Amino acid sequence: MSEPSYTRLQVDERRRQLLELGTVLFARHAYDDLSMAQIAREAGISKALLYHYFPSKSDYFQATLSTAALDLQRRMEPLADLPPAEALAASLDVFLSWVQENELAYRRVLESSETVAEVKSLVAGVRQDTAARLIEGLAPDPKPSIRAAVRGWLGLMDGVCLDWLDNGDMSREEVKGLLAGSLFGVLTAAGWKPPGLTP
Amino acid sequence: MSEPSYTRLQVDERRRQLLELGTVLFARHAYDDLSMAQIAREAGISKALLYHYFPSKSDYFQATLSTAALDLQRRMEPLADLPPAEALAASLDVFLSWVQENELAYRRVLESSETVAEVKSLVAGVRQDTAARLIEGLAPDPKPSIRAAVRGWLGLMDGVCLDWLDNGDMSREEVKGLLAGSLFGVLTAAGWKPPGLTP
Repeated sequence: MSEPSYTRLQVDERRRQLLELGTVLFARHAYDDLSMAQIAREAGISKALLYHYFPSKSDYFQATLSTAALDLQRRMEPLADLPPAEALAASLDVFLSWVQENELAYRRVLESSETVAEVKSLVAGVRQDTAARLIEGLAPDPKPSIRAAVRGWLGLMDGVCLDWLDNGDMSREEVKGLLAGSLFGVLTAAGWKPPGLTP
Repeated sequence: MSEPSYTRLQVDERRRQLLELGTVLFARHAYDDLSMAQIAREAGISKALLYHYFPSKSDYFQATLSTAALDLQRRMEPLADLPPAEALAASLDVFLSWVQENELAYRRVLESSETVAEVKSLVAGVRQDTAARLIEGLAPDPKPSIRAAVRGWLGLMDGVCLDWLDNGDMSREEVKGLLAGSLFGVLTAAGWKPPGLTP
């Protein structure tokens, strides 16, 4: 019998499945404890076939991080056209769910690691775009302090999310409320007034 | 004539002077553009003597970063016993002055670089201790949301400071006001009430 001939679709689908599995495996095991043999076993394929898709464990890991980052981007995009307050709530929902589902990827993105520079800038880009759209809606012509406050708030998000992941004693709704409330607290400290209240 | 015999004090003093010079040089020049020959020239000593103090440019740079971090620690320490509101204002003054004087060191500490891990943890430690003392004064028995808010606020500081350094269109006093106001905005979002207002 000849080798089975895989169609492009089957190859893409297998790759997608392997990346999904990777998100789960890298969340469950420490990077160093996970071998390509074990990954192949979990995927129910041969080690040779796994190597056909990913030349090394590092490549496989990088690819799962990129997938996670693209997934965040894809989930944020439809929120672009919502009114600011709704966009804020929806973006926080998406972001916090993504952080919960991709804890390792999120931590890696925050950690000081040159190896994930591309993923890091993808996630940073998604967040900056979201913040830029929010601020455009809330304060169309922002002064420096408001620009600085929004950038600060993005930093605050990471501090709060890491605290949440580390301690596990707040619900996602509580974290969402804290982040949304903090944004308005920080904007107020920056001298912002809601558009409707300005003369 | 025999070699001049340097006393321990002279050696320490020279080292101290070289480290001070390093802070200035690394702030003024890109790391890659600065050679050990140039550093020796600026210090008015031979290249051989410079190598006697620091085996490589990287060692020299690391040492200037550590010096900057220890300097921050030294300047923060006396503020430990002030009442919370004064401690906050004084800590922000010290921190923002330090950021201005050590822009490169501060940026390096924030950047993703394994090489400055020790310096990074020193600066992080100083800040966490300061925040811990502040929060102890403001909210002696903090609930999770307040703990998360304070950690978030430390992240906010970096976002605001980077924005300040990048754009240069805010005074240090404005930044200080934004950071102090943000802390109270964020604490309020976390459900905090000033100690005097709780029943």
